[in-house]
Amino acid sequence: MPAPGRFLLRLLPGWILRYPRQRLAEDLVAGLIVAFLALPQSLAYALLAGLPPQVGLYVSILPAIAYAWVGSSMVQAVGPVAITAIMTYTVLQPLATPGTPEYAGLAASLALLSGVLLTIGSLLRLGFLSQLLSRPVIQGFISGSAVLILLSQSRHLLGLESGSDSWPGLWAALLAQLAGGLGPAALIGLVALAVLALGRTLLEHALVRCGMAAARAKFIVRLLPLMVIAAASAVVLHFNLEARGIAVVGPLASGLPDFHWFLPDHASLGKLAVPAMLLALVGMVQNIAMAQALAIKRHERVDANSELLGLGAANMVAAVYGGMPVGGGVSRSALNVAAGAQSPLASIVTAATMGVIVYALASFFSHLPLAALAASIMVAAFSMIDLKSWREAWAYDRADGLAWLGTAGGVVFLGLERGIGLGIMLSLTTLLLRASTPHIARLGRIPGSEHFRNTDRHAVETLPEVVFLRIDESLFFGNQSAVEARIASELLETPTLRHVVLVMSAVNRVDTTAMEMLCDINRDLDERQIHLHLAEVKGPVHDRLHHSRLWPALSGQVFLSVNEAFEKLRLAAPRLTVPANKAPSPSWHP
Amino acid sequence: MPAPGRFLLRLLPGWILRYPRQRLAEDLVAGLIVAFLALPQSLAYALLAGLPPQVGLYVSILPAIAYAWVGSSMVQAVGPVAITAIMTYTVLQPLATPGTPEYAGLAASLALLSGVLLTIGSLLRLGFLSQLLSRPVIQGFISGSAVLILLSQSRHLLGLESGSDSWPGLWAALLAQLAGGLGPAALIGLVALAVLALGRTLLEHALVRCGMAAARAKFIVRLLPLMVIAAASAVVLHFNLEARGIAVVGPLASGLPDFHWFLPDHASLGKLAVPAMLLALVGMVQNIAMAQALAIKRHERVDANSELLGLGAANMVAAVYGGMPVGGGVSRSALNVAAGAQSPLASIVTAATMGVIVYALASFFSHLPLAALAASIMVAAFSMIDLKSWREAWAYDRADGLAWLGTAGGVVFLGLERGIGLGIMLSLTTLLLRASTPHIARLGRIPGSEHFRNTDRHAVETLPEVVFLRIDESLFFGNQSAVEARIASELLETPTLRHVVLVMSAVNRVDTTAMEMLCDINRDLDERQIHLHLAEVKGPVHDRLHHSRLWPALSGQVFLSVNEAFEKLRLAAPRLTVPANKAPSPSWHP
Repeated sequence: MPAPGRFLLRLLPGWILRYPRQRLAEDLVAGLIVAFLALPQSLAYALLAGLPPQVGLYVSILPAIAYAWVGSSMVQAVGPVAITAIMTYTVLQPLATPGTPEYAGLAASLALLSGVLLTIGSLLRLGFLSQLLSRPVIQGFISGSAVLILLSQSRHLLGLESGSDSWPGLWAALLAQLAGGLGPAALIGLVALAVLALGRTLLEHALVRCGMAAARAKFIVRLLPLMVIAAASAVVLHFNLEARGIAVVGPLASGLPDFHWFLPDHASLGKLAVPAMLLALVGMVQNIAMAQALAIKRHERVDANSELLGLGAANMVAAVYGGMPVGGGVSRSALNVAAGAQSPLASIVTAATMGVIVYALASFFSHLPLAALAASIMVAAFSMIDLKSWREAWAYDRADGLAWLGTAGGVVFLGLERGIGLGIMLSLTTLLLRASTPHIARLGRIPGSEHFRNTDRHAVETLPEVVFLRIDESLFFGNQSAVEARIASELLETPTLRHVVLVMSAVNRVDTTAMEMLCDINRDLDERQIHLHLAEVKGPVHDRLHHSRLWPALSGQVFLSVNEAFEKLRLAAPRLTVPANKAPSPSWHP
Repeated sequence: MPAPGRFLLRLLPGWILRYPRQRLAEDLVAGLIVAFLALPQSLAYALLAGLPPQVGLYVSILPAIAYAWVGSSMVQAVGPVAITAIMTYTVLQPLATPGTPEYAGLAASLALLSGVLLTIGSLLRLGFLSQLLSRPVIQGFISGSAVLILLSQSRHLLGLESGSDSWPGLWAALLAQLAGGLGPAALIGLVALAVLALGRTLLEHALVRCGMAAARAKFIVRLLPLMVIAAASAVVLHFNLEARGIAVVGPLASGLPDFHWFLPDHASLGKLAVPAMLLALVGMVQNIAMAQALAIKRHERVDANSELLGLGAANMVAAVYGGMPVGGGVSRSALNVAAGAQSPLASIVTAATMGVIVYALASFFSHLPLAALAASIMVAAFSMIDLKSWREAWAYDRADGLAWLGTAGGVVFLGLERGIGLGIMLSLTTLLLRASTPHIARLGRIPGSEHFRNTDRHAVETLPEVVFLRIDESLFFGNQSAVEARIASELLETPTLRHVVLVMSAVNRVDTTAMEMLCDINRDLDERQIHLHLAEVKGPVHDRLHHSRLWPALSGQVFLSVNEAFEKLRLAAPRLTVPANKAPSPSWHP
């Protein structure tokens, strides 16, 4: 093959080169289905983000293709998702009025910034940062965000005019609305909400009872949102409700938008830097978690840093084409897998179909009432509130349950950024707090054996002048003072002590702070003529300590095993009971 | 004893009730000495904080007594210290002009807020929070602060008028000053600096050569700062330099200040909340670290939460009497110990002596030139720059060295708050990063024994259908994905796998995220007809997992020892090679 051909081949993603032809049909069918199923949510999430609904369609096209090209997951689908949409809205709403060109520009800047951050993160291999968030924190964050979504959409659902997002403002408007009687928008919204909320289970039961196969019934139910918004549009058209002031999607730009090259100005960069980082972090966590879960199910592997690159590319494309941050979504990917997608080709087919839909059905969507879209968002948001995950976390581990509550409460009452900050703080504090109280066992020998066990739990032999302490945790700045305190209390309890042996079998690391603590302990024990010994030091720890200032200063020995220490110190003891007295250290007095 | 008497007795600190009479002389002498030795630094640190120098004397009186009453350390001395002084200055300097009543009010508010925070911290038993800071971070913070001190005092030293604290502003002023010739202030300052910097070693050598005992020579050298500022005051008086515009301490309020009851207003509360938290955290860390080090040397014990209470009480008293945050200082406590203090009585004697000095010598101190005080601060600051600690940390552990550099650099170039924030972030990230890549060993049995070792390092027996993985770290959200990835790679490497045994001997905790990960792994392995077993689960971990949803779902068994698992799975293997095929999970296709 000539060189230019090879170069072009390299630009193609690996999955195209290895594509198994027999899967083509499955991918084509899945791609077509997902395009129709994801249509309502694509429109809805753009509305949720405070942008014109058609933007949701636009960013389901080229950004999805960019991810399919660059990402590493076979079945993850990228597009507008609930979490990034509500984050976009809460970040931008204080900065500009939704619907204005300024707002649209800020949304695009946010997508660009988070795309650039994700790409940089991928190049710096920062995928591990996604581990900053524990599952209870993520679940609390999603649940709290869902409450925010419900709050923000109840306005659209009821066709309220003025947009106060605070609790009292909203309730005041709601009461005023109810006092004045419900408008047509509220009627459509509430009916749509009822159909979507109750329809799922009722329809599935009904269909199965009518003799339909369970799988087919499940599929029909998935079409419900599409049917509801189509019906709502038809109602608006038929009764000419637009003339009565009902809010609709409105005329779409004819066909696809142009590319929109821009660089955010300095002022918006400053305002959006922290939100963009948060968006990148949350997008990364959601995307990697979903991709890994799917890959494990399908016996594939994903690479966290390729995922970052894919998500970064998708967001950068979304910035110039559509103008709204995108993510790898739970519901979107679930649709994709359920429709039978086998490779990113399905996502490309979905994107192409969406393009055709934008061309062909633009005029029909222009009559879609916002209230019906809001209803579909609210049903989705309601299913995102995962109280079961809280109950499980609380039952298993109070601290994790608290982190869940702190994150969810923080999101609802303090905002998204502070909420997730609080969650991270709570989980890191728990981690530090637990590691700072390490389990330390005083060991003795089981008579007639070479085994050593906790003196509190077993009948064991001990030596009167020697204490063996096993530390069940790596030594670092967080727990060094606990070790220091434990040794101090052993000294007070056993005044005859002449040897302290630290059993290091469970110590995987010793950081600088802990190494210096060991030096301090060694010096202080030495002043009291007590020897400090180490036993069962692991290879990597040994290598590091060997070059530290602890090694030459150590008053005792380093034993390979606890038993060796026990035997040697038992023999040495008689000679050690009267240690050579050192000269008192010089001190001055006037 | 009647009830009121018992009540009064309870208000007395424990050390008074147990006071050994034979130590009275030592404490009295030590208290007197320290009052004179700590005099220059008390004046100097108030100047450093941007406050009138006499404030340093005031807060050496009642706040020191409050700490002696409430704190738990026997020999820690509390008063104005370098770190809290420079923190006060950098926090308040952007908010008000040093020397104005507004500035003084803010300084008192800062002391009050941090005192209240410390007291609350003590009641909530938050002493463990001091472990957020590793030693390299503290050392880097102190070294960076020392650079800030040098920078801020070089202005006073040279008698510069306008106070720009930025590097370029300072250098410009310095060059302008040099071009115009040095004033008398600069002359006094530079001479004092030279005497203090060189005097220490030279004088000690000279005295020892003249036949003085080393201990006595060391004591005389400690008096050097006092002699220097006395000489500088005498020079100012003799040559009437005040008339030539040299900056001096100025007239002191006659005797002691009144109590100054006040509540900070809402606006300053908002501005000072974060700095006060930082001040409380750093004060707490310094105080606890120093108190613990001294207690270990003296075979005593301190309680972190009593220390917090003592420091909180001292700061609250300092807020209403003097008006400057105080701390437990390294140099102050070292003076105290060197002078032979045996109990907090020494600090009370020091405080009383300071009170007398304020009355008696007020007029003399009013002529003290600021340049000489600045020289004494700069010499102290220079000795705070601890490059040796950086070299040691860097040699022992690159990550710790980096945290040191990041903190020091952050303090100098980004400010105190961001600097320490950067340090905490760097050390926590290192911690997470390391715990997120746990050591996982594949085990095999040493032939003829019941011992299991790493297959990579030892010639061991293995079973073709079983993999034994020992995880050398507690399982938590930070490393659960590494465990997941390792199991996935074992599956790819060994397609014949039928059993995965996780050896949990080094796992001290399993958090919610990791428990759910184990559930996921169990489910995914089960779908491939692979059993997940656990072995050597520790008691507390077992208790917790026992009530989780992992237990009923677990496809395999829980073995007490690895050997038990090995024996049972070896016997079971032939029957397990053709597992019963499960029905494929239902899925729908259109």
